[in-house]
Amino acid sequence: MIVVVGELINTSRKAIYEAVENGDKEYIQSVAKAQMDAGATYLDVNCGTFMEREKEVMKWLIETIREVTDAPLCIDSPDPEALRIGLELCGPNAMINSTTFETPRFEAVVPLAVEFKAKLIALCISDEGMPDGVDDRADIARRMVQALNERGVKNDDIYLDPLIKPMSAGQMNGKNVLDAIYRIVRENEGVHMICGLSNISYSLPARKQINKTFMIQTMAMGMDGYIIDITNKEMAGALFASQLLLGQDKYCRKYINAYRRGIYGEPK
Amino acid sequence: MIVVVGELINTSRKAIYEAVENGDKEYIQSVAKAQMDAGATYLDVNCGTFMEREKEVMKWLIETIREVTDAPLCIDSPDPEALRIGLELCGPNAMINSTTFETPRFEAVVPLAVEFKAKLIALCISDEGMPDGVDDRADIARRMVQALNERGVKNDDIYLDPLIKPMSAGQMNGKNVLDAIYRIVRENEGVHMICGLSNISYSLPARKQINKTFMIQTMAMGMDGYIIDITNKEMAGALFASQLLLGQDKYCRKYINAYRRGIYGEPK
Repeated sequence: MIVVVGELINTSRKAIYEAVENGDKEYIQSVAKAQMDAGATYLDVNCGTFMEREKEVMKWLIETIREVTDAPLCIDSPDPEALRIGLELCGPNAMINSTTFETPRFEAVVPLAVEFKAKLIALCISDEGMPDGVDDRADIARRMVQALNERGVKNDDIYLDPLIKPMSAGQMNGKNVLDAIYRIVRENEGVHMICGLSNISYSLPARKQINKTFMIQTMAMGMDGYIIDITNKEMAGALFASQLLLGQDKYCRKYINAYRRGIYGEPK
Repeated sequence: MIVVVGELINTSRKAIYEAVENGDKEYIQSVAKAQMDAGATYLDVNCGTFMEREKEVMKWLIETIREVTDAPLCIDSPDPEALRIGLELCGPNAMINSTTFETPRFEAVVPLAVEFKAKLIALCISDEGMPDGVDDRADIARRMVQALNERGVKNDDIYLDPLIKPMSAGQMNGKNVLDAIYRIVRENEGVHMICGLSNISYSLPARKQINKTFMIQTMAMGMDGYIIDITNKEMAGALFASQLLLGQDKYCRKYINAYRRGIYGEPK
């Protein structure tokens, strides 16, 4: 099953920022519902742009969302204290976005995943820095999964992010990730993989074309989670068609039902 | 490099059929030019629907196309005699569409590929019938490549078609092809792979969504040839984005240039 984290409730988006500033609960709630209707598994909640007010805004956002839906939330912050506030408020079945394998962050975030029995997004960045190729990604993944297991996090709760760098910064930045995914899912049985898609197309034209294509490619390699705008019909269509073609859709039911519900349409 | 066979000059399409019936050279020539402008490597020529007039129509089509372009042609017929007429008229650098590994067809078509030094599309169907899974596809591919090598056809001139069956006929019909491609390109070094995309979506809604997604998936697995409508901007965009992400586009030049020329646009 593909896990979809709806990315829209993020205060770096102007409409969400303004809704927070204006105390516009209805708008936040409509965005939450629209993402669930389109098939999101989790709703991301990110208010990092509020800096020192982050924890207070996190609380308001979660309470606002909880008035209309019990949807699992993905608490998104680099600050362990903001993560804790989110996890305390949001109820069970949460996801944490994210840790890395850098010691200070890893030691601060992993205990939260254990305490709250939360799924954990774990970025392939170590104390040695960011990986660039296939071997270094696979190496960080293997060591991080082992360290997580030792602290009591099961593979089924781990969502590895292979670290996406822009195509504009290197010709092999896409291909290396594809090869790394293929290896990591086969070398770490039961582990999940997830990523966002905006980095890959940074500074290039027709970014949605690149993002959508990369989603399809990575899913074919074994990635099973995405942090995306699932209310975008092009992305939703690509997702349902991918699931179908990868053998994850008995009798084509999900694909046909989503089409009938208007989740996606026929491209031109 | 991805080989694109423009599929439009096929008399099973109503507009082409009528152009042939009316002797409308201009229309045929405009379709030939539009496909080359959009980046086709070969132009498919198929007039199988004319049955007993096939050879006469093949001659007229090729002469008509040759008045405006020297583009390499892909001569498309199940009839070895029609293939011969096409190959004699079309000049060097042709492609044959297609042989299978069924003895009578193989013995009739392969000598034409050798005589005309043509690229050869070879469908994974043997005397035992059509393959269904991964192992049987890989087995037919291996035996067929060996038999082609023995007759003097080099791997670089072979375009294996893994045989695409509709998703509506079996849940694993896509996934099995993806896994077969991954194996076949690694087990038969230097061999190319090609397919058309209409079979996969047969009888399902939003067929272009499925076709486009399957193109992206198969390319990620190692397929490097497609028989498609490259004048469709959605398909072209997916193709250029795929090439970019697979590391086949230095400095993103092909992707950016195609965008500037309007070959594809930003999806909604």
